[in-house]
Amino acid sequence: MNYRSNIHSSANSKGHLTIGGCDAVALAKRFGTPLYVIDEDAVRRACRAYVEEFGARYPNVRVIYASKALMVKAIALLVMEEGLFLDVCSGGELYTAISAGCPADQIYFHGNSKSAAEIAFALSVGVFRFVVDSLDELYVIDRLARSKGLVANVMLRLTPGIEAHTHEYIKTGQIDSKFGIVIPNGDALRAVGIAKRLANVRLTGLHCHIGSQVFEMEPFVDAIDVMMNFAKQAHEATGFIMEELDIGGGLGIRYNSKDDPITARDLAEAVAPALIDAASRHGLPLPSLLLEPGRSIVGEAGTTLYTVNAVKRIEGVRTYVSVDGGMADNPRIALYQAEYEAALANRMAVPGPSSPGSSESWETVSVAGNCCESGDMLVWDVSMPRPEIGDTLAVFCTGAYNYSMASNYNRYPRPAVVLVRDGRADVIVERETYADLTARDSVPVRLRPAATRPAAAELAHRDSAGAQSR
Amino acid sequence: MNYRSNIHSSANSKGHLTIGGCDAVALAKRFGTPLYVIDEDAVRRACRAYVEEFGARYPNVRVIYASKALMVKAIALLVMEEGLFLDVCSGGELYTAISAGCPADQIYFHGNSKSAAEIAFALSVGVFRFVVDSLDELYVIDRLARSKGLVANVMLRLTPGIEAHTHEYIKTGQIDSKFGIVIPNGDALRAVGIAKRLANVRLTGLHCHIGSQVFEMEPFVDAIDVMMNFAKQAHEATGFIMEELDIGGGLGIRYNSKDDPITARDLAEAVAPALIDAASRHGLPLPSLLLEPGRSIVGEAGTTLYTVNAVKRIEGVRTYVSVDGGMADNPRIALYQAEYEAALANRMAVPGPSSPGSSESWETVSVAGNCCESGDMLVWDVSMPRPEIGDTLAVFCTGAYNYSMASNYNRYPRPAVVLVRDGRADVIVERETYADLTARDSVPVRLRPAATRPAAAELAHRDSAGAQSR
Repeated sequence: MNYRSNIHSSANSKGHLTIGGCDAVALAKRFGTPLYVIDEDAVRRACRAYVEEFGARYPNVRVIYASKALMVKAIALLVMEEGLFLDVCSGGELYTAISAGCPADQIYFHGNSKSAAEIAFALSVGVFRFVVDSLDELYVIDRLARSKGLVANVMLRLTPGIEAHTHEYIKTGQIDSKFGIVIPNGDALRAVGIAKRLANVRLTGLHCHIGSQVFEMEPFVDAIDVMMNFAKQAHEATGFIMEELDIGGGLGIRYNSKDDPITARDLAEAVAPALIDAASRHGLPLPSLLLEPGRSIVGEAGTTLYTVNAVKRIEGVRTYVSVDGGMADNPRIALYQAEYEAALANRMAVPGPSSPGSSESWETVSVAGNCCESGDMLVWDVSMPRPEIGDTLAVFCTGAYNYSMASNYNRYPRPAVVLVRDGRADVIVERETYADLTARDSVPVRLRPAATRPAAAELAHRDSAGAQSR
Repeated sequence: MNYRSNIHSSANSKGHLTIGGCDAVALAKRFGTPLYVIDEDAVRRACRAYVEEFGARYPNVRVIYASKALMVKAIALLVMEEGLFLDVCSGGELYTAISAGCPADQIYFHGNSKSAAEIAFALSVGVFRFVVDSLDELYVIDRLARSKGLVANVMLRLTPGIEAHTHEYIKTGQIDSKFGIVIPNGDALRAVGIAKRLANVRLTGLHCHIGSQVFEMEPFVDAIDVMMNFAKQAHEATGFIMEELDIGGGLGIRYNSKDDPITARDLAEAVAPALIDAASRHGLPLPSLLLEPGRSIVGEAGTTLYTVNAVKRIEGVRTYVSVDGGMADNPRIALYQAEYEAALANRMAVPGPSSPGSSESWETVSVAGNCCESGDMLVWDVSMPRPEIGDTLAVFCTGAYNYSMASNYNRYPRPAVVLVRDGRADVIVERETYADLTARDSVPVRLRPAATRPAAAELAHRDSAGAQSR
């Protein structure tokens, strides 16, 4: 018997999982659990694959990290060090990047629902591009840019009408979408005309995004075809020159042994010639090619470590292994029915005459989260050495959309994030404390327990003062 | 045409939504959006309904607020002021209650995966009961209580094998569940025997929970029957006297006009005589009857206010209204396909010759959240006066599992929570700031931008110091 997924795991002589040269059991002991562990070299390799594979096949490529997958200061700086630009989709992501010291002129600002305050913030720091999602947004940007005496560089996000074969929730590109401006019904062409006419925006290019966790190249190639046809049409109708074409992100990763993702190289080999060919056919100049990987940059680099709190064996039914984290730190199973793989980090030995622990009996178990909710399961039906209280359990491929989606559901503090490389571990996000959980709680005087409540006279005074400031 | 849901809304002479006597548009302006608004009287009414309806029909009732629905200091104190006990399911919830000044001897500690540290914390503050989910947990409590010279009062959570008709994710009670100890296969009886033998736990009663958002009384009555049969069996086998029977929570609420929930009164009328009858039939003393409402205490009391950032009309397809919140503040739509109702808080007028704004044209729209994810939709197909940028949009019945499940996905700061009553509004949770989002971010020296990075010599020194402390 064996762990289903050995691609994500290596072990040391103690039979402990190692990540970035660090002993995972030692990491759990040093930093506590649950713990997000990010393998720095894996992130760097993923960045380089995009930069190199596309760079070798296309003259002007810009790889833009879709930071919503994992946006903390250290990761933003790390991917920029590898030559990536940054895609942010909120004022909070922009703030994180700017406060980390990331240059604003390498930041794209996405999102279907930017507030006026967010747009004003982005204008004030000088983001490189607004990726505009609607005419309403275009007008607000133009107006706010005018009030600041600026011209904002914008791209238009279009819906090409391509559907990638992926989970319903993360499917985009179809016409009935909250995202983008529709091409087939003429909305997109009208938007290009309006953008060209507005004095305080400059339209630099077009954007599309066909889906997430995509395992095929064809939809990307089809999208390029649709976008280049549109660029030609828009050029003829309005004189618009598309300086840059952003084909979005969406490359799938290998969450489990059933997944068989395409690589950055596969995509580059399909996309680069398709774009060169389309430009040539249409007699258009080659646009810069923009890509927005997020999940495929950080997803496989992440591992979450948990401690086993309880094992419940229901004879003939199932063994539940309850760990000290769950949907609060990884909501993707409940949200998307995502399938992860897991292993006991302190007993990684595979069967064999000389392997320590190889004679252990193995068991098929399901890993339960600690939230008070039946849906909070982490992994169903995974085989591992018979687990016990205190074991360190690893769930793999948790680098993307785990920390970034984490909540304090059931008032669990969010875990720390450590970055590991060459046997060294650095905390890049500190663990929350109980005190953090209540730091913003405020109790009106009238609800305070008697012992801490002011006398009635003072209370009446305060209440009336409060009422006045209503 | 009309808002589908008038039960949740009242309006003032300006045609603005009012909650707890406060003008919702004024609240949005004063506190910003997104904003969670909790109607204090609605919470108190819900508490009193349980206390009074059950109190009138059963001699010894304890209503325990399932705080995971919404656990902040002010709410914990409010429900305890109404005579409710508190159910916490983590160290963080327990910390919140204790730091608010809630008495520990009115707190039940639930959860399928309590860590040893959480159990030790609960013992040290003296929680009233541990609701024990597995034999593993029982042994840990006994061991830690022994080490502190204490006897812990425990209840056993059992799985009665009852399935409530509810959403797959929130269904509990069946045998194949991470929760509880199984009755039909004999595990529960063995657990009672063990609990009776352990010296540092005292078994006070039994617990079950059949599901969430339940709309029928029959499963509760059936569960009582199963639990009382078991209590009789356990009494005969071990001499165990069940002092208290906790039948859990799970009463549904009215998220939308299709929902037709039973009331606390309905439940009391069904449950109280069933329990009295079963005790009499089995010749058992009447146990205390414990109930654990959460959603039905705070759910309908909550409203979330948003600002419209953009309206996109796709001719013949759909109108998307993008607001300044979404799955980060309300993940229940993406998680459970929950259906909410919405209205424009600044244009609540219903058609009629003398109503202000009654001549407005109405439109069926879908409300999109602001997260960069197609699945982030708040409401599909709701009718309202033709919405525009800047409108205040209200989503109803968001008091339960909204703030408590909120995340910083896309790095959106979590909204403030205000408690309203008699025209007065008090902040009970302050809005997060951008600075809060990055407060725990830490950047290893090697990743800092050149301008803020120490000179090479100093860097080498720090790196080696860091390596030593590995």
